[in-house]
Amino acid sequence: MLSHLSLSILLLNLLLVSAQTYQRLGACPTLGCVFPPDQTDFLVGQLFDIRLEVHAPVNGTEATGNTTPNETFTLCIQKGKGNCVEAKKYFNLKSEPAVEKWNFTYYEDLFAKDEGKLTGVNVAAKAYRAPGKYQAKLSYNGGAKTVANWEVREPAKKRKAKNVLFFIGDGMTQPMITAARLIGHKSINGKYQTLMQLDQMEALGLQMTHSIDSFITDSANSATALYTGKKSTVNALNVWVDSSSDVFDDPKVETIAELFRRKTGGPVGIVSTAYIADATPAALCAHTRDRGQSASVVYEFLYNATSLDPRFDWPTSCKGPDVIFGGGAEQFIAGSGSHQGKDFYKEFQSQGYQVVYDNTQLKKVDTSKKTLGIFTTGNLAKWVDRNVLTENLKGQSNHPTGDKTDAVDQPGLKDMTLKAIDVLQARSKGKGWFMMSEAASIDKMMHALDYDRALGELLELDDTVRASIKHLEEIGELDDTLIVVTADHGHGFDVFGGADTKYLAAQTEDRKKRAAVGVYAESGLSGYQVAPGSSPTNQSVVFGAQGPNFPVQWNPRYAYAAGFGASPDRREDYIINEKGPRTPATKGSDGGYVANPSEHTVGYSVSGTLPTDQSQGVHSLQDVPVYAKGPGAEAFRGVFNSVDIFFKIADALALGKPSKRH
Amino acid sequence: MLSHLSLSILLLNLLLVSAQTYQRLGACPTLGCVFPPDQTDFLVGQLFDIRLEVHAPVNGTEATGNTTPNETFTLCIQKGKGNCVEAKKYFNLKSEPAVEKWNFTYYEDLFAKDEGKLTGVNVAAKAYRAPGKYQAKLSYNGGAKTVANWEVREPAKKRKAKNVLFFIGDGMTQPMITAARLIGHKSINGKYQTLMQLDQMEALGLQMTHSIDSFITDSANSATALYTGKKSTVNALNVWVDSSSDVFDDPKVETIAELFRRKTGGPVGIVSTAYIADATPAALCAHTRDRGQSASVVYEFLYNATSLDPRFDWPTSCKGPDVIFGGGAEQFIAGSGSHQGKDFYKEFQSQGYQVVYDNTQLKKVDTSKKTLGIFTTGNLAKWVDRNVLTENLKGQSNHPTGDKTDAVDQPGLKDMTLKAIDVLQARSKGKGWFMMSEAASIDKMMHALDYDRALGELLELDDTVRASIKHLEEIGELDDTLIVVTADHGHGFDVFGGADTKYLAAQTEDRKKRAAVGVYAESGLSGYQVAPGSSPTNQSVVFGAQGPNFPVQWNPRYAYAAGFGASPDRREDYIINEKGPRTPATKGSDGGYVANPSEHTVGYSVSGTLPTDQSQGVHSLQDVPVYAKGPGAEAFRGVFNSVDIFFKIADALALGKPSKRH
Repeated sequence: MLSHLSLSILLLNLLLVSAQTYQRLGACPTLGCVFPPDQTDFLVGQLFDIRLEVHAPVNGTEATGNTTPNETFTLCIQKGKGNCVEAKKYFNLKSEPAVEKWNFTYYEDLFAKDEGKLTGVNVAAKAYRAPGKYQAKLSYNGGAKTVANWEVREPAKKRKAKNVLFFIGDGMTQPMITAARLIGHKSINGKYQTLMQLDQMEALGLQMTHSIDSFITDSANSATALYTGKKSTVNALNVWVDSSSDVFDDPKVETIAELFRRKTGGPVGIVSTAYIADATPAALCAHTRDRGQSASVVYEFLYNATSLDPRFDWPTSCKGPDVIFGGGAEQFIAGSGSHQGKDFYKEFQSQGYQVVYDNTQLKKVDTSKKTLGIFTTGNLAKWVDRNVLTENLKGQSNHPTGDKTDAVDQPGLKDMTLKAIDVLQARSKGKGWFMMSEAASIDKMMHALDYDRALGELLELDDTVRASIKHLEEIGELDDTLIVVTADHGHGFDVFGGADTKYLAAQTEDRKKRAAVGVYAESGLSGYQVAPGSSPTNQSVVFGAQGPNFPVQWNPRYAYAAGFGASPDRREDYIINEKGPRTPATKGSDGGYVANPSEHTVGYSVSGTLPTDQSQGVHSLQDVPVYAKGPGAEAFRGVFNSVDIFFKIADALALGKPSKRH
Repeated sequence: MLSHLSLSILLLNLLLVSAQTYQRLGACPTLGCVFPPDQTDFLVGQLFDIRLEVHAPVNGTEATGNTTPNETFTLCIQKGKGNCVEAKKYFNLKSEPAVEKWNFTYYEDLFAKDEGKLTGVNVAAKAYRAPGKYQAKLSYNGGAKTVANWEVREPAKKRKAKNVLFFIGDGMTQPMITAARLIGHKSINGKYQTLMQLDQMEALGLQMTHSIDSFITDSANSATALYTGKKSTVNALNVWVDSSSDVFDDPKVETIAELFRRKTGGPVGIVSTAYIADATPAALCAHTRDRGQSASVVYEFLYNATSLDPRFDWPTSCKGPDVIFGGGAEQFIAGSGSHQGKDFYKEFQSQGYQVVYDNTQLKKVDTSKKTLGIFTTGNLAKWVDRNVLTENLKGQSNHPTGDKTDAVDQPGLKDMTLKAIDVLQARSKGKGWFMMSEAASIDKMMHALDYDRALGELLELDDTVRASIKHLEEIGELDDTLIVVTADHGHGFDVFGGADTKYLAAQTEDRKKRAAVGVYAESGLSGYQVAPGSSPTNQSVVFGAQGPNFPVQWNPRYAYAAGFGASPDRREDYIINEKGPRTPATKGSDGGYVANPSEHTVGYSVSGTLPTDQSQGVHSLQDVPVYAKGPGAEAFRGVFNSVDIFFKIADALALGKPSKRH
């Protein structure tokens, strides 16, 4: 599993290097920058920082001749139709914050990059800590103005939900859910005999996932939107990205987990099938523009950001979530991967945590205690490998203790989520709890073009939602729990037909192999709900060892044929990768990625559409689905922006209501 | 436009030739066939036929040695827990229907096809006309049984909606709507300043589009599901496909338009940007297993199916819809394309229709009269060509009168729909009306991989929904009108990034050209909402000549990059096809399709994933969105099957309620 962690980090580096170059600074198209930027919405009382910057480009198309940034810029804040009041007065500061100065360089476009022609920018900046609601006006360069409108939304007056169980299917789209239904559920004459749990939720919505400064998002940026109600930039966790080089000094904003802690004092849970410092779990507590700061992310689970940021104490934090379950032992084992090289298992234990390393231990935890469960290095094993192709668990040297044995007793999302409910319930003492549970490898396996494993993860998520509803009902909490299931972004996956895998393998020419794809009527019926050896039109339902709601077999002769428009070069045969997750592309002779020659060798070769420095599939634009059930669910109906999810959850918990706590 | 009609018909032929061969007969996996098949749901009083078949395979894997089909099969019908009553008695027939006999052949799989090894089947069959609700049990071959469960759904008791305006965006998916929003609407710092009309509807749902016997549908089959509440087979219009060779004798089922006519007597309207005999408009009135029977489809708009079916009089029909607006003059001009070579303009006039041929005439119609508007041969021109690249309207020789001049004065979907509302309103005399309005070329342009034109059609649909709401409000009918917008199936389209089209064109190597694609942060912001020449980060909104809700420019330097997994070989440069709709692939030296060498010549070459006999993109699996507004809209929330749309509309109109009319 370690290989996947490395790949993710590599991908991030590539992004930073090749940023499309009309973006001097993503959320600042003018030379005067205000963060939070225009169009930002806040929950009443939500904490945040302000950052101002004035840019003086030294060369390039925006250069004015004056290469010294104006340092006498001013900020005034206006409430409603009132006067615009000088920031120092408005915030009741003894003195103006000091002006900070730095410079940075960037490429203006791909031609400039090819020529190595950098554009330089000199910067003067200030920072404020500023709770409130305003119109902010930055005046700079003797007359230029940048205006940012910030809206503070009317808070809900009454708490509807005691508990919130927030599921994120990372990278999950409706086309994937449709495909998962096709392979996991039986249909007779066009009528499904069983349905996905997601199909049966009370409320259905769709959310827009785009970034503040690019229409395609990553998981850090999109998690920031979901948890804080603020759009940000690719790779950023709960900050707006300024142009300084420090990755911890960017202006911060408070997350739903921090707010929930501060306002209610209730317990918080974080569950993920990824390494626990990965973007989606990280974004509940961490504040940095660089999601790759894994050690600091784990630090911020336990302690606040004060010692990381050179400028301000950050006055809020997750204060040690009551449950943390996932992978990523690298950030806990003392060594190069952990914060200051410390043993973070011990750090957590010193803060009162019990620590567990496998599913057997997980089953026996003392639910009254804060619990840390780290079950592997890197990401957790995939559902398909844990349940069907179990040989793939061996030879990984991925035990979370770092003893180089194999983590063969890993829990699944369902095991972790149900146990987390029990711990949170035991620790909440009636205050209610908040949990985020992430099916991380829908995304990771879609990146790898390993559609079968991705759909296995999706079916596991669906099964976990189903089991959670049942468990909440059993413990009498269902009616008090708002359950929300959504994604953070998509991949352009869809099923376009069937494939006769036997015929495909039997042909020798690539163009003839393509004849094995059956479209329209020739797509036929799902072969995944038929017991191996029997006819695809056999109507008897035979479930596999994994129970209902999963395929009866994973390698039928008539498989689904799927793909997306954004791919590296690769080979396709529509057969499940039996030896573990797929690696579709490897480095070729020109230094770029080409189809992995040792994979899917009976398949046909397909050329890619992505830059050849991309080894995997990429995220896509499409709106992603939102499902909700329980008190407050009706608010999740219809089409809305990703940031609205934060406000809908905060409203269900009445987190905007003035409280006696802090 | 004629070329597109021809392409569609070619596509159909290919489908019939290469049917995936485990399907002896799609909806009949056993040797005894009952149509309607198991799992069929009916509205109370909805008319339908029954067809029974007993198959005796002569050779192949299902051969039993007995090549003579059993002719002494029997059918009994059981209501609830009652006795199973012999069909003759149940239907009160004087005698059993005569046994019919025929045979057919098919390939069992692709290997058999390559070897030319046909499997033969001898058939004995019977047909009944049978309204009611039942469990049907077919006994054959001295003991074998096929049981079909038919459910008659509880009808709504009260009519909620006076009028129904049913929009179909053919092939439209949520990823396409997201892309249309990106190019048609302005966003600032991640917040859209305007939204699609679809984003703002009262109710949001998702529907499953699969066929009865294949998981990918075509538009005939899916329209049948939407209009009758019955799943069927690819290419079928309102029939279940039996194995006989006659394309008009398959068992029929009554459509929403026929029911509305029969039960309420109110006026019906059909509007499409396709040729009017195309599947989606055809399926309101026609009954045939072959959507390619265009002449007969037009015949069935005006007359009932009696003279087409050798067996039964069909007792219901559309009785001449009050409005028919679209293309497809070929079926009206006397000649080889029209039914029995007759002049169908005259046929319609003889039934009291006024006929119009262009937008100028359309504006002046007498709204008190039945109106036929045929505006071109083939499909209507695309929104982009009618509004932006108008030179493309010339040199088409497509005038609907057949005079070989160009149809340069074609109306758009909005012109047709608003005028249709006026005619229906004038003719309804308070009874209420039903209209289907189709944006057909979302699908047609997605097939051609002409994403820009497809999104133009989608934005036109959205603009038409917006304008219809406004118009209905103005005439005082909005509160009485149920508006439903959905699709019939998808294409696996998604946007995966941006493309620097200037950089792409400037590179000479294919692999270097791919570097022009910008993913994640490099996708940047939409270039389509920026006036030509200004910066993509310019915040001032400048609308183009076409008004708001459309792109300001269609060929920005920084374009969106999109595609799907199911494609023929093609070239991609992400620049709009300026000379008219795209033709991505042409015949290559091996007889299969290869990338069109004369198209997008600055682009890079991408190999396809589809069989090389496919010249275009194909349909996909994903659930498609449903939007509703008005009385009855709440029923369209959540996830459901395509067939449920029929029942939800029928319920809003209370069509299942016993009425005094026939």
